[in-house]
Amino acid sequence: MNPARLALAALALGSLAPARADEGMWLFTAPPREKIRAAYGFELDAAWLDHLMKSSVRVDDEGTGAFVSGDGLVITNQHVGLDSLQKLSNAQTDYASNGFYAANPADEIKCVDLELDALQSIEDVTARVNAAVPAGAGGEDAAKARRRVTAEIEKESHDRTGLHSEVVTLYQGGAYHLYRYRRYTDVRLVFSPGQQAAYFGGDPDNFEYPRYDLDICLFRVYEDGRPLHTEHYLKWSSRGARDGELVFVSGNPGTTDRLLTVAQLEFRRDVSCPYSLARLNRREVLLMAWSARSFENARRAQEGLLYVQNSRKVYGGMLAGLQDPGFMSAKRTAEERFRRQLATRPDGAGALAAFKRIEEAERAIARDYLRYRILENADGFAADSFAIARKLLRSGDERPKPDGERLSEYSDAQRDSLELDLFSDKPIYADLETLSLGDSLTHLTGRLGYDDPTVQAVLAGRAPQARAAELVRATKVRDVAFRRQLYVGGAPAVLAAHDPMIELARLVDAESRALRRARDAEDEVEQEAQASIGRARFAIEGASTYPDATFTLRLSYGAVRGYEEDGAAVPFMTTLAGLYRRSEEHANREPFDLPPGWAGKKQALDLGTQLNFVSTCDTVGGNSGSPTVNTRGDFVGIIFDGNIQSLTEDQAYDDVQSRSLSVSSAGIIEALRKVYGASSLADELVSGHRRVGP
Amino acid sequence: MNPARLALAALALGSLAPARADEGMWLFTAPPREKIRAAYGFELDAAWLDHLMKSSVRVDDEGTGAFVSGDGLVITNQHVGLDSLQKLSNAQTDYASNGFYAANPADEIKCVDLELDALQSIEDVTARVNAAVPAGAGGEDAAKARRRVTAEIEKESHDRTGLHSEVVTLYQGGAYHLYRYRRYTDVRLVFSPGQQAAYFGGDPDNFEYPRYDLDICLFRVYEDGRPLHTEHYLKWSSRGARDGELVFVSGNPGTTDRLLTVAQLEFRRDVSCPYSLARLNRREVLLMAWSARSFENARRAQEGLLYVQNSRKVYGGMLAGLQDPGFMSAKRTAEERFRRQLATRPDGAGALAAFKRIEEAERAIARDYLRYRILENADGFAADSFAIARKLLRSGDERPKPDGERLSEYSDAQRDSLELDLFSDKPIYADLETLSLGDSLTHLTGRLGYDDPTVQAVLAGRAPQARAAELVRATKVRDVAFRRQLYVGGAPAVLAAHDPMIELARLVDAESRALRRARDAEDEVEQEAQASIGRARFAIEGASTYPDATFTLRLSYGAVRGYEEDGAAVPFMTTLAGLYRRSEEHANREPFDLPPGWAGKKQALDLGTQLNFVSTCDTVGGNSGSPTVNTRGDFVGIIFDGNIQSLTEDQAYDDVQSRSLSVSSAGIIEALRKVYGASSLADELVSGHRRVGP
Repeated sequence: MNPARLALAALALGSLAPARADEGMWLFTAPPREKIRAAYGFELDAAWLDHLMKSSVRVDDEGTGAFVSGDGLVITNQHVGLDSLQKLSNAQTDYASNGFYAANPADEIKCVDLELDALQSIEDVTARVNAAVPAGAGGEDAAKARRRVTAEIEKESHDRTGLHSEVVTLYQGGAYHLYRYRRYTDVRLVFSPGQQAAYFGGDPDNFEYPRYDLDICLFRVYEDGRPLHTEHYLKWSSRGARDGELVFVSGNPGTTDRLLTVAQLEFRRDVSCPYSLARLNRREVLLMAWSARSFENARRAQEGLLYVQNSRKVYGGMLAGLQDPGFMSAKRTAEERFRRQLATRPDGAGALAAFKRIEEAERAIARDYLRYRILENADGFAADSFAIARKLLRSGDERPKPDGERLSEYSDAQRDSLELDLFSDKPIYADLETLSLGDSLTHLTGRLGYDDPTVQAVLAGRAPQARAAELVRATKVRDVAFRRQLYVGGAPAVLAAHDPMIELARLVDAESRALRRARDAEDEVEQEAQASIGRARFAIEGASTYPDATFTLRLSYGAVRGYEEDGAAVPFMTTLAGLYRRSEEHANREPFDLPPGWAGKKQALDLGTQLNFVSTCDTVGGNSGSPTVNTRGDFVGIIFDGNIQSLTEDQAYDDVQSRSLSVSSAGIIEALRKVYGASSLADELVSGHRRVGP
Repeated sequence: MNPARLALAALALGSLAPARADEGMWLFTAPPREKIRAAYGFELDAAWLDHLMKSSVRVDDEGTGAFVSGDGLVITNQHVGLDSLQKLSNAQTDYASNGFYAANPADEIKCVDLELDALQSIEDVTARVNAAVPAGAGGEDAAKARRRVTAEIEKESHDRTGLHSEVVTLYQGGAYHLYRYRRYTDVRLVFSPGQQAAYFGGDPDNFEYPRYDLDICLFRVYEDGRPLHTEHYLKWSSRGARDGELVFVSGNPGTTDRLLTVAQLEFRRDVSCPYSLARLNRREVLLMAWSARSFENARRAQEGLLYVQNSRKVYGGMLAGLQDPGFMSAKRTAEERFRRQLATRPDGAGALAAFKRIEEAERAIARDYLRYRILENADGFAADSFAIARKLLRSGDERPKPDGERLSEYSDAQRDSLELDLFSDKPIYADLETLSLGDSLTHLTGRLGYDDPTVQAVLAGRAPQARAAELVRATKVRDVAFRRQLYVGGAPAVLAAHDPMIELARLVDAESRALRRARDAEDEVEQEAQASIGRARFAIEGASTYPDATFTLRLSYGAVRGYEEDGAAVPFMTTLAGLYRRSEEHANREPFDLPPGWAGKKQALDLGTQLNFVSTCDTVGGNSGSPTVNTRGDFVGIIFDGNIQSLTEDQAYDDVQSRSLSVSSAGIIEALRKVYGASSLADELVSGHRRVGP
């Protein structure tokens, strides 16, 4: 599992009960037509859906975005684009903090390694995948067979269509779908409002509502050196969202776990969640303390710190639900009821046995969890230099193998991503690397134990911080040319280099790979078992359900609607006036200081303009940057967060207080025109086309 | 062990080698006359020492202070006085943040529960204590006998002299000394410069140097409603410290562990230190996030947050040393050498066996450590309400017992302290209580395990945060009158009250007490064993050593001297000009913003005035607020911190880079006169007497 994606996801743990009103992250191939018709009297239409799908994009492994002009303009969140903004920034020009605007196309800056994927088609390949797995094959054999056929299907598809192709496991293995994407790698930065406008209120207001954030970032896709012309883009609503109206969200929710068994929930409650929170806490303290020492430290640590703070709230919310005896006993009751239903069915025995296999797999995963996280997941080596060193080492070892037998991230299908990442010249700061590696070596030493042979070998006689300093100083992997040379030269070149960071990766590689193999095997056992339970569940519940989120495109729907909190009404929208008011309440102090450029604009702005709004749409992390559209398919806003109730209350979808937060299309236009002097960009959004010439 | 004292202490882990130059926290009864004569040609004089001893005070269990006028004026650090400042503050008047100055005696405010102890005499009671322990008595029996005789000696002394009397265990039980203090409980606030001046640079600059902090707080001791007249006070040097001069520090270093065995160091490295750091990290994140939500939150959490951040640096530094293979193998080598010496001596067998007993005791302590910390140490119930509830419950149960058999904090000797604490009307904030208790119940649930019967009983079917909210809402222990009524009524009244927080304390009391008994017994075994090793060490090393710190009065000495860092010279002092410069470098942003009142005073001040300086004196936490005096015995500064090297470098005393930091007597006077308009206070300091009349 991609830890970045996992941590960004609000891992909403839903009930096992039938979907409630507005619940669901539905497949575009199986949208909830009847539910929407019944609740809202609206008829979903195939062409409408196809256009929305093709107008949506997946942004790296970070989030979602949407085409909003016929000239390749893409909108997403500033926090989704942050990684790219950071990579374009340095001590002198800090686009992440200060923002950016290219009034002319010539000023648009090419991103270092940003990839956008626009979904073009979906094909059901369940039968072919299942046929490739020999009957009665065990966990690891089944997994290997499935990886092989999956790689085959992806390669065939890519060769035939030229489209980036991914086989997606849905319904816990109940179905396999082939997703084909048009992949764009020439993506240029057009506009970002800067950190303070995007993240007004900072960590204190994160996951809170009311909010006043202009969390947007605009890129333009180029093809053959020219702006992409596309018919699939969302028309802009200058008005924003209306109270009570039906809206839709098209995006890539990262991960949900609404169908986990009690054993799986217990593993999270007792093992993975506490571990992750403890690690996040130590990293947050580390980065906060270091950031406070100077402005430049703060700039360098900013992206990492935001990620950690966000994840900490997500995991905290998740753990709060899991430790709630009410929630856990309801889960247990529902599971027992389901198991009793299974017991009465002739085909139920297989699914019942699957519950047992999951319990055993969770026990095995728990046993090795710490070493897996620290060594294979590299929690003990948290530095970009180490990640690069390992990639160089492993790509040398993996690439000579047949495609289907490699670690998945070294497959042919992932080759472009690997190289983009490996040869990215994003800045890597030696001081931050030393800090972070030193802290994670301390973590490794503490968790695995000082006397552990691996720990002693890693430390090589030095204290953790001193060892980190020595490694970071001596390694050459921060030099892109060096990386290119080793990548091209393969394993012999990597060996000959005697680079200390690569040699560290090599030192732990045998044990790391063994942990990976064991974990992958248990994951496969679980996937098999989940698939078995999933199929049995369908047999009982029918096709009325949606699969758990998989960071692939889904459709959510709901109403724009406020809620009640502690007896007070929380309105469905905030306005520009509210931003000024909240800043005043905090004496304009960080993180509630007015964003640069806003102080003098209060008179010029229409202060009643909608800035943020909430809806009951079912979203989680990965949905960040998802377009919110009205029934006409017009863009009325962009998802950027959920409120705190969406993380903690009942751990299930809930339309009483839980809400998704959008930046309003209305506020975006008002701010672009009057605060940022970006009228030509605003014109392009409203008209759908870039004005050419003077 | 008092966790507050422990965490504030820089637990310097010294070598087993003979003391290096300037090393040592020496007993006033056995000062290092020869060493000082040899190194500095200065002759220590008995009257000089006696005057310094009687001029020094211990401030609660927080730190040190000194009389600085014949009219009862006492100086300490603002961070030592912070607890008292907080207790006098509320949402309207925030003395902790904004400072305070009473220009007239009538404006001086009586502190809520501050106690100052001035040491008057020291008596060696080793023979009597040892005689009371039956020959061959085991750990627990020996401990009980020792507690009984200790209580006896203290009571006799108190009855005879009226002085507060404490028997102190020195040299790991090699010696027992009776310390008699004059205890002052009518202590009034005179001056505090406010948080930003005292703690300029905040957490980022904590444990760093160069520094620019005016970390002082002045109180006046009253007796019978009038300012105390005392002949023992330190004369003020208006000039501060000179480069290279010999200075002395008289203070109460909290805890050192320079004579710990390898087994004890390993326990810290592998068990207690990682646990404490993880807990501190989670509390720091909790309080930081909550503080950021509003100004009032920040004010309420301030003291707790400072404590956590400080402790985090201390434990981090300690762990860094313990995880250093160089340090640990040197320790092991030294211990092996010592054990070989023991093996050659006729009386060495007992000490050798003691090493074994320590190993076994550490194993036993490690086994129960988590439950002990969470239940008996109340890490799972981090709320003032719980602490009060437990005190009410236990005082009802303990007070009917014979004095020598009670838990130590309920002994007659501690009764005044207990009551002062129990009936203190310091504000307790329900919101912060709920936050903190909720987080610590989450910690309890995660660490002890959701299915643990104690956890399930504590949660009573609610999620941790909900359970905390319910308990804080329903308890009456925040009402001082209620506490008084239950304390007076004893166990029957406590039982009849059915207060939910007290009932929670009762629910875990049997297990908590069992953990306490087991822990105390192991501690006793270790003390016995340490005493055995300590005696053997004396037999070899002679009386040339000083005992580990015990939060009792000690004398340190050293030179005022700068040092080198990364090839650059770090000067011995900073000036007022430096404060302005550092603030400018940080664009006057938190926590480097100029303290209130300083902005307009730059012209008026003599900017070359000494503000802070460093010396090689050997100090740790508990020394905070200690007077630094020159050879004439004049006050030249006040200890407020150590640099980062004093926490990490070699984990031993070291005069290469490790330094103690003082606020200069010169800077104090300049700031009082020109920034704070406190000329009459400055006059009193310089003249040694309060001017009476107009």
